[in-house]
Amino acid sequence: MAPVNAENDPLYRLRHSTAHVMAQAVLEIFPDGKIAIGPPVENGFYYDFELPRPLTPDDLKDVEKRMRKIVQKKHEFAYREVSADEAREVFKRQPYKLELIDGLAQGQDEYGEKADAKDTVISTYKHDTFEDLCKGPHVENLGEIKPDAFKLLRVSGAYWRGDEKRPMLQRIYGTVWPSKAELDHHLWQLEEAKKRDHRKLGKDLDLFMFSQAVGNGLPLWLPKGAILRDTLERFLRQAQIDRGYLPVVTPHIGKIDLYKTSGHWYTYRDSIFPVVEEIPNDDPENPAGEIYVLKPMNCPHHIEIYKNEPRSYRDLPLRLAEFGTVYRYEQSGELTGLLRVRSFTVDDSHLFVTPEQLEEEFIKVVDLVLYVFGTMGLTDFQARVGLREPGNPKYIGSDEVWEKSQSAIINAAEKLGLPFTVVEGEAAFYGPKLDFIFRDVLGRHWQLGTVQVDYNLPERFEIEYTGEDGLKHRPVMIHRAPFGSLERFIGTLIEQHAGAFPVWLAPVQAMIIPITDRNNDYAHEVRAQLKALGIRAEVDTSNNRMNGKIRAAQQQKIPYMLVIGDKEQEAGAVAVRQRSGDDLGAIPVAEFSARIVDEVANHR
Amino acid sequence: MAPVNAENDPLYRLRHSTAHVMAQAVLEIFPDGKIAIGPPVENGFYYDFELPRPLTPDDLKDVEKRMRKIVQKKHEFAYREVSADEAREVFKRQPYKLELIDGLAQGQDEYGEKADAKDTVISTYKHDTFEDLCKGPHVENLGEIKPDAFKLLRVSGAYWRGDEKRPMLQRIYGTVWPSKAELDHHLWQLEEAKKRDHRKLGKDLDLFMFSQAVGNGLPLWLPKGAILRDTLERFLRQAQIDRGYLPVVTPHIGKIDLYKTSGHWYTYRDSIFPVVEEIPNDDPENPAGEIYVLKPMNCPHHIEIYKNEPRSYRDLPLRLAEFGTVYRYEQSGELTGLLRVRSFTVDDSHLFVTPEQLEEEFIKVVDLVLYVFGTMGLTDFQARVGLREPGNPKYIGSDEVWEKSQSAIINAAEKLGLPFTVVEGEAAFYGPKLDFIFRDVLGRHWQLGTVQVDYNLPERFEIEYTGEDGLKHRPVMIHRAPFGSLERFIGTLIEQHAGAFPVWLAPVQAMIIPITDRNNDYAHEVRAQLKALGIRAEVDTSNNRMNGKIRAAQQQKIPYMLVIGDKEQEAGAVAVRQRSGDDLGAIPVAEFSARIVDEVANHR
Repeated sequence: MAPVNAENDPLYRLRHSTAHVMAQAVLEIFPDGKIAIGPPVENGFYYDFELPRPLTPDDLKDVEKRMRKIVQKKHEFAYREVSADEAREVFKRQPYKLELIDGLAQGQDEYGEKADAKDTVISTYKHDTFEDLCKGPHVENLGEIKPDAFKLLRVSGAYWRGDEKRPMLQRIYGTVWPSKAELDHHLWQLEEAKKRDHRKLGKDLDLFMFSQAVGNGLPLWLPKGAILRDTLERFLRQAQIDRGYLPVVTPHIGKIDLYKTSGHWYTYRDSIFPVVEEIPNDDPENPAGEIYVLKPMNCPHHIEIYKNEPRSYRDLPLRLAEFGTVYRYEQSGELTGLLRVRSFTVDDSHLFVTPEQLEEEFIKVVDLVLYVFGTMGLTDFQARVGLREPGNPKYIGSDEVWEKSQSAIINAAEKLGLPFTVVEGEAAFYGPKLDFIFRDVLGRHWQLGTVQVDYNLPERFEIEYTGEDGLKHRPVMIHRAPFGSLERFIGTLIEQHAGAFPVWLAPVQAMIIPITDRNNDYAHEVRAQLKALGIRAEVDTSNNRMNGKIRAAQQQKIPYMLVIGDKEQEAGAVAVRQRSGDDLGAIPVAEFSARIVDEVANHR
Repeated sequence: MAPVNAENDPLYRLRHSTAHVMAQAVLEIFPDGKIAIGPPVENGFYYDFELPRPLTPDDLKDVEKRMRKIVQKKHEFAYREVSADEAREVFKRQPYKLELIDGLAQGQDEYGEKADAKDTVISTYKHDTFEDLCKGPHVENLGEIKPDAFKLLRVSGAYWRGDEKRPMLQRIYGTVWPSKAELDHHLWQLEEAKKRDHRKLGKDLDLFMFSQAVGNGLPLWLPKGAILRDTLERFLRQAQIDRGYLPVVTPHIGKIDLYKTSGHWYTYRDSIFPVVEEIPNDDPENPAGEIYVLKPMNCPHHIEIYKNEPRSYRDLPLRLAEFGTVYRYEQSGELTGLLRVRSFTVDDSHLFVTPEQLEEEFIKVVDLVLYVFGTMGLTDFQARVGLREPGNPKYIGSDEVWEKSQSAIINAAEKLGLPFTVVEGEAAFYGPKLDFIFRDVLGRHWQLGTVQVDYNLPERFEIEYTGEDGLKHRPVMIHRAPFGSLERFIGTLIEQHAGAFPVWLAPVQAMIIPITDRNNDYAHEVRAQLKALGIRAEVDTSNNRMNGKIRAAQQQKIPYMLVIGDKEQEAGAVAVRQRSGDDLGAIPVAEFSARIVDEVANHR
């Protein structure tokens, strides 16, 4: 969690100030405690302490109680600038502060990094009895911190300055909001996020697993997850075929030179898995051996397909699409469930277009992305145009080309009437992009689909088409992925739906529950009827009682439970319950079949 | 082409004898020519010569003519054993023969390899004026070689003893058969095989490509090939779902230890692509760095999925299925189109069964293989039971386990009433297998599907299930792949059908051909109707005339051409031609749609 830098944000002031209050309260309990730093972070704040003993949950309650007393006094925050020596006198019993003061005196900021002069002014903020080395800003007075609008969350270990050779401190995390209602909402979100955590649900619902033996960050999709994946793939594949995309399949490795040509090697070499193949040195073609890499991107392979034959303007737009699995070596500390993995499948497509076709084709791509999001029920999203950061050498290609491609995206987004923000430094290294940031039911943001305009790779790979004028021209490429990656997208879907997928995506759509063994045959008959219609139905023939079977199906978040007793069997019906608990009563099998088939066909 | 060793085969004698006759004829033309060796090979023979000039096609005709004269004299073959010195006298002007004689005298066979005493007896065969160093056997007399039943095919270079440091000789290939009819059939087969060559058709029909930039032996599937692949995958996937298989998806890499445990590493290390990933040495978990390999097989990954949770007998059989792409480093000289590649996708499944379930489940698997072959119209095949070669250390596991698994396969094959042959040395290193060898329209054999029984990997990976008795037991694994690999299978299909795939598999099923531009709109309307039914139809709006469009579609082997003129347009019809040339006349669109939808549904 990086410190929030939006110092003018009122929440920043509130959180920063509450961190000071917490430090005061901790020192009241442990007068010899040493304090380190206490910045605001996303949704809250922390403070690091060296204390004589590990804190318990009861300690946190005690600290909270003291904080409530402190804020009720509504002290003002007083700012003053001091010399290094004055500061050393104030903090003479606080070694971490003394180290910070030494740093500031040498032109370093609180993290020990070289800093601007304005950031190395030595200043303190004081409220009540507590004075902290601090550059602010803070709230005017403690009255702005509502006693019922903050909560301490947990304690964890943290090395001083993140250095494992320095002392391990105790870090207390807290959260604070302008009102109790907002705090309660945030705590509900935290609780809900824990329940929806795709790593937990992925396990509970048997969707995917990781194996130490296979390797960190390499998801293995279990049958139910594989069905979900396949359903998403088939849906997008069909939407693409309807729009003139052509499927291709390419290998997962390629010679390293491909990525030198594309430039990926220079930008991402640390995260590219090399595949070393030593060729016996009697192979005259390869005296030096060959190095392949696990492909980190699919673009060069699709470009090779483009280059397989001479292309004319009549062939364009050429839209090559592949669910292409790519490999990136992420540091093991950064791996997070399906969100940060070492292997992921991009719903990738590369469109080769004439410059004249670019805008229209770009708009069509965005239309497809919006169709996909709409079908998935992901309606709360924002578009973000990512431009290059001027002057950063990682962005390849001429200024002219960047101007052209950046304005192509902005023009298209405007034509679409798509509200969007513009952020510098969010471009791909070869071109600007339009990203779609989805806000989930908990208000969290997830970056999903992306559409990119690229004049650079066509240049670097020297690809051409013959124009209507009989001359050679260079096409423009659009890189796009509505899901982004199947792994990340499914992670999002799991959290958005808390694992209760819409019927069409649910790995098991109906669980058939015979009440007694004598209903088993009829249950299997119903299953066969549903299966013939493409419905994924199972029969629970375990020894559990009916209620146990219903509970098990609900825990598996199966949309429909079809209970079958003698009455239903006689009537050719099923008693339908939904996972929500709703009981739809007995319905003839044919009627239920029509209902569920309709839901699946309409992506409900 | 390895020498054929079936020396008792009459064809072997015929071919070997014809090689002698050819050598005699060549020496009649080039009396100072030097002769090397001339063995029979599959379907024919060759002989290597050192001659004063390169041979031309006219020379081959001349040699053939002389051979015809020679055989008409019906000389007998005379055998005699000689001492090394006698032999040196006979062949004093033939340095290659002298080298062979020296070798024989030192106990080496004609290829310079150490040989048994019986194979180093020095003997000659003589007919007419020609005496050759030879251990036979031969036909009785030249009358058995019919003058119209042989043909010389081509000349190519070959190093003496395959050693590039020794002289380059001229190798003449010929073929000979018991009768002219058989020769003609063989020549027709050769011609037909050239036309059906999947490498040529793969290019002509835009199915797949190779790219030097990506790497040798790594096929890239072009849109039409990708559609064909996907159609096959979907077909098998559905057949598997119908039979209780569960799809999974696993990464293309895994830690090397997986393959040490499985034993693949020790058997196949030369053909496993290692992926080296150096881990920064401050990662305490991996001080020595990690080595991954590109998976050469899918088994260990599926075993990891099995191990993901405790299994009970109630969970078995567990049938995990994946279209899993694997990588093997084949030598570049061995790469052949889609038949020998470095990346291929196995239609893999691993079934985990109790020992009691093994036979029934094995029979079900074979049923599925037969269903797949039947649907594909591959009806001419043989089953081959591959056993281990006794004493060969590459086969892991105890004798007892091999006995059990070998008899399991043989019993099941017998129960099925499946005619099969038994071949030692054709087992997988971990267990015996049942392979399906398909004979194509040209009489060529292709190894396709495989079913394997494996008691060894469950042991090595220590996998278990809880039995009905509450105790731990070890499951048995069945490895199976009806296609074998998608690449190889598609290569076979291309050659079998000469690229004219059945309608359901054809990448483009119907080409709509408007006669004039004013029929274009209707053509697109028809296409939209067909597309809505899932039919892959395209419209040829090129500037070609109707006949040119028909020819182009025929060359692309598109099953149906739907010609549309004003008359058809008015009648809501299409004039249907088949790629065979048959003209079905004008048919209402609805009627044609019903026909083609029915064909696709029934895999025709």
